[in-house]
Amino acid sequence: MRKVYFCGSIRGGRDDVYLYREIICLIKSYGNSVLTEHIASPEVFGLEKDKSDHDIWVQDMEWLSQADLVIAECSTPSLGVGYELAEAKHLNKKTIVFARKKERFSSLSAMIAGDPYYDIYLYSSEEELFDQLRNLLENNR
Amino acid sequence: MRKVYFCGSIRGGRDDVYLYREIICLIKSYGNSVLTEHIASPEVFGLEKDKSDHDIWVQDMEWLSQADLVIAECSTPSLGVGYELAEAKHLNKKTIVFARKKERFSSLSAMIAGDPYYDIYLYSSEEELFDQLRNLLENNR
Repeated sequence: MRKVYFCGSIRGGRDDVYLYREIICLIKSYGNSVLTEHIASPEVFGLEKDKSDHDIWVQDMEWLSQADLVIAECSTPSLGVGYELAEAKHLNKKTIVFARKKERFSSLSAMIAGDPYYDIYLYSSEEELFDQLRNLLENNR
Repeated sequence: MRKVYFCGSIRGGRDDVYLYREIICLIKSYGNSVLTEHIASPEVFGLEKDKSDHDIWVQDMEWLSQADLVIAECSTPSLGVGYELAEAKHLNKKTIVFARKKERFSSLSAMIAGDPYYDIYLYSSEEELFDQLRNLLENNR
């Protein structure tokens, strides 16, 4: 069983939480475990309320170091996701980035889109996102 | 003259652009140069329109490696700023983070607030931000 670290926005905004849930569900349906499954929970702020920011950071960095694969959904801008993507690179993790296609200058950050380290998939529809993700999961079993 | 790499949101959202401009102005008034002054320009998308994302990334990583000090304003969530903060740490740059105080779970990402590497200043008013920044610039001449 592979361990996947999924990155999505928490404090940056929760508009895409339903999408995070479907992505995590699909990743798990291929027999993977998702270390950061709480990101898809509508209760995420309650789950983290007894933890300090430092405790959250320690836990997430530990999970990131254990991960076999990192998958990020980047449509909602998030400091934490940008930070995690850079850390994933420094840990030499295979890192896949999804983002909705928008006009160029409201789209994915140039710091992510311009860094050749990442495998980037821009999608126009959820159908396209899930097709791309299924393909990736088939080929990375 | 010290070189400051200022981080602020571009594609993540431009709500704080007026604040970026005042911060950069204050940093320069202490005799520093600001490598990323374009972040405060209302024309930033025009300035970047003939560059590929890869060109922007190469330029910004070059500037980051040259910087004597990194200062980030993090109130508007941004993938690029999160990425730059992690890269600044890996380059061992002194890195100062500003963010507006909000309720805990809409505030600064736990990945930044919980990482002991950063000097973090949460402010309640612009007056407080500029007082903190002046203090820092006085003490880091």
